[in-house]
Amino acid sequence: MSSGSILVYGGRGALGSTIVTFFKEKGFKTLSIDFFENEAADDNILLKSDLGFEAQAEAVKNVLDAKSGFKVDAIFCVAGGWAGGNLKTATFIKDSHLMLQQSVWSSYIAAHLASHFLNDNGLLVLTGAQAALNPTPDMIGYGVAKAAVHQLVKSAAAPKGGLPEGARSLAILPVTLDTPMNRKYMTYNGTWTPLEEVARLLFEWTSAPGASPASGSLVQLITKDGNTETKIA
Amino acid sequence: MSSGSILVYGGRGALGSTIVTFFKEKGFKTLSIDFFENEAADDNILLKSDLGFEAQAEAVKNVLDAKSGFKVDAIFCVAGGWAGGNLKTATFIKDSHLMLQQSVWSSYIAAHLASHFLNDNGLLVLTGAQAALNPTPDMIGYGVAKAAVHQLVKSAAAPKGGLPEGARSLAILPVTLDTPMNRKYMTYNGTWTPLEEVARLLFEWTSAPGASPASGSLVQLITKDGNTETKIA
Repeated sequence: MSSGSILVYGGRGALGSTIVTFFKEKGFKTLSIDFFENEAADDNILLKSDLGFEAQAEAVKNVLDAKSGFKVDAIFCVAGGWAGGNLKTATFIKDSHLMLQQSVWSSYIAAHLASHFLNDNGLLVLTGAQAALNPTPDMIGYGVAKAAVHQLVKSAAAPKGGLPEGARSLAILPVTLDTPMNRKYMTYNGTWTPLEEVARLLFEWTSAPGASPASGSLVQLITKDGNTETKIA
Repeated sequence: MSSGSILVYGGRGALGSTIVTFFKEKGFKTLSIDFFENEAADDNILLKSDLGFEAQAEAVKNVLDAKSGFKVDAIFCVAGGWAGGNLKTATFIKDSHLMLQQSVWSSYIAAHLASHFLNDNGLLVLTGAQAALNPTPDMIGYGVAKAAVHQLVKSAAAPKGGLPEGARSLAILPVTLDTPMNRKYMTYNGTWTPLEEVARLLFEWTSAPGASPASGSLVQLITKDGNTETKIA
């Protein structure tokens, strides 16, 4: 018995893994797309690190096209990365390129897949960043990539954006996620959003169209003293 | 006798050529960076179409590094392109990739050059789009790329963004430019902005720091009945 199905782009990362496990426990079928296999997922599509943007997108779409009648209730893109630096940083172009690849390419591919494989009234969620609501001089490549994702979410949500009938497009805008990587490199301060909380929110939005913010919303995840609230940007 | 100097990224395109000619007539030294030579420019750096983002940026910077003490008063990035289509368009990924290359890569390279080769109190201008202030469901790749450029301009303008002392960062947001290409494919309707008008504006902003809108501004170019006005977004 399945309650539904989801596709997680970046399904082997810290947040992606948490989402896969959370939805699986709720009876959902889960498909992970990532460079590495997520053994907890019902199915995996492996990305190839030597493929460019277009070839990667085509390879993934071909696999899904081959699954007769493949459809999911939600597609979440939680791939991404972070890099600091301003215009003058020696690695500025390299870092900015990486941010485009990690956040923008992945979001574009997930959004394109949503136009083909999302059920009517389904849900597309991409990962933006609260920081990108303002100028980001100390992490320019990161902020620019996330601002691009915000525009993608808003455009996908607009009439004739290409999503199936009734489907919604949302962005989650974390401040800092409580990941093992962040625990390793930064000092925890009580404002980090627990990954399970993000998964719970996505589950809530997936379960009932009426339970999510309006399509096109940029949803900030604000955590204080361990409590997470959402705030529309 | 030179009044100053400018660098035009995309200096052989319709707008770029107009800018080069306009500034040259005002006594400025002009450097064009483009895939093709602009014979009207005092100097040219030719881009190579087979180079990727990082290699292209490095190649251009190396040429400028080799010009001892090279500095300019303004850097304008007027490279770009346009593509329509929504998430479901068959060429969505390809088109979106092209928009990133034409508008975002070029803007990144121009901004990086500005951090190294702009004089104090100089001017960096990148080309956004008025359309990208709102969702762009019928030209998603275009709108996303331009939204990225807007964030880049705002971040470059913020303290510690990496620009030289007193330098300004602005975006011009055209609706439609009166180019030969647009004349060929669309019907002129009196709201297209003349290229000379854009060049005149850039010249005004370059000539006196006080004559330009505040650094970080997204400057819409609104043309009605042949008259162009600016409006800060």
